[in-house]
Amino acid sequence: MSRFLFHPVLRERTRIVLPLEEAHHLRVERIKPSQSIFLSDGKGHLFQGVYLGKIEGKFWVEVLTLVKEEERLQDLRIWQSVLHSPTRMDWLVEKLTEIGASEIGFFSAQRSGDINFSVHKQVRWEKIVVNACKQSGRLFFPTVRYRESWKDLLETLRAFSGRIIVADLSAEEDLWYFLNTHGESCSFLLVVGPEGDFTEKEKEELLSFPRAYSVRLTSHILRSETASLFGASILRSFLDGRS
Amino acid sequence: MSRFLFHPVLRERTRIVLPLEEAHHLRVERIKPSQSIFLSDGKGHLFQGVYLGKIEGKFWVEVLTLVKEEERLQDLRIWQSVLHSPTRMDWLVEKLTEIGASEIGFFSAQRSGDINFSVHKQVRWEKIVVNACKQSGRLFFPTVRYRESWKDLLETLRAFSGRIIVADLSAEEDLWYFLNTHGESCSFLLVVGPEGDFTEKEKEELLSFPRAYSVRLTSHILRSETASLFGASILRSFLDGRS
Repeated sequence: MSRFLFHPVLRERTRIVLPLEEAHHLRVERIKPSQSIFLSDGKGHLFQGVYLGKIEGKFWVEVLTLVKEEERLQDLRIWQSVLHSPTRMDWLVEKLTEIGASEIGFFSAQRSGDINFSVHKQVRWEKIVVNACKQSGRLFFPTVRYRESWKDLLETLRAFSGRIIVADLSAEEDLWYFLNTHGESCSFLLVVGPEGDFTEKEKEELLSFPRAYSVRLTSHILRSETASLFGASILRSFLDGRS
Repeated sequence: MSRFLFHPVLRERTRIVLPLEEAHHLRVERIKPSQSIFLSDGKGHLFQGVYLGKIEGKFWVEVLTLVKEEERLQDLRIWQSVLHSPTRMDWLVEKLTEIGASEIGFFSAQRSGDINFSVHKQVRWEKIVVNACKQSGRLFFPTVRYRESWKDLLETLRAFSGRIIVADLSAEEDLWYFLNTHGESCSFLLVVGPEGDFTEKEKEELLSFPRAYSVRLTSHILRSETASLFGASILRSFLDGRS
């Protein structure tokens, strides 16, 4: 599939103004007026359109026809405790998007510290998501969220109806075994703690949900972000194999 | 397990001089003479030792007893066509080491371009491997190799006795299905091509080996290094579940 430009609201036979960020890609890819382009709204739709040109400083596009409608992938939500390195968090957003996470969440745990969360960071992550989706041809963009308080994280988990997998090096069941025995559910939420691990109290609270399981990802210690990516890869592959 | 210092040759009841890189870690971790330390040779052994001190500019350690001998993990070799970004290659070496690859190889394909390979790069990758093994407590260090010529890559594959998995977006079988039908082998070599894919001729040559299979990792396009990591995660998890 050709790469696409992003616009949050697309309908057939309408004219739209491209967001500045996307207009920039237009320039980078040397797209000229009257040239055919693809557009996605990040909600599963791919449209064909035509670039009309720059009119009074704005970049106009005519949306023509819906050419592809993708089914939503089975839910795969990854919740990762915040990392000290912003670069590693950015990197994780990119990789989890490519792999096909439907939601990427960060939270503060007792041993993870906090991050200096700002609208700026949220915008940055959303840009990474858009670029990674263009790269991998994914038409559903994952949402990226941040929960500063532990209580809010627990509320988020409570609202989730699939299976919650709490990554735990000391768990008896490994992920492969878990999927072959409890994998019939078609949506998963993986929770990965900080490098110093969850506190006992945090673990207890996470595992208090009726659909939460303590699962060992590997027999070796992984960096926190590697654990997320490792678990997400296996879960995505499992879900793809089921669909 | 506590982190360890690295020395390539370790025997009980001997005295050794630490390589400078490791002596640096000694300083960073503020280890004082007479203090107990762990050491690994990267070949599966963990020794307890004691730091003797700096004598005539050299950092001496007494190796005491072997405290752990790890079994070699089942073979998981990842061969990745070279990437344009050296940072992404470094990153891949780190992540594949953590996940437990036993060999990490880079090669030049027609559409990947070459890299400016030097001893300097090799040394850099080896340092990344040592650090990632310390981080994850892995006592077997993977080897990192580079094959500049396609012919040499083919020779490397020919010498491998396990199953060769060639990542191919257009393949009919996905990895999950492949493992559930042909996964009885206990060693794998995954080959991942450049972003522009292998040429048809390259693919043919790779698949000419009797134990080579064309396998789809996911239904979406992954960046080349994401594909390696995705495949390695699933294969490692599969192998761990079998052992």
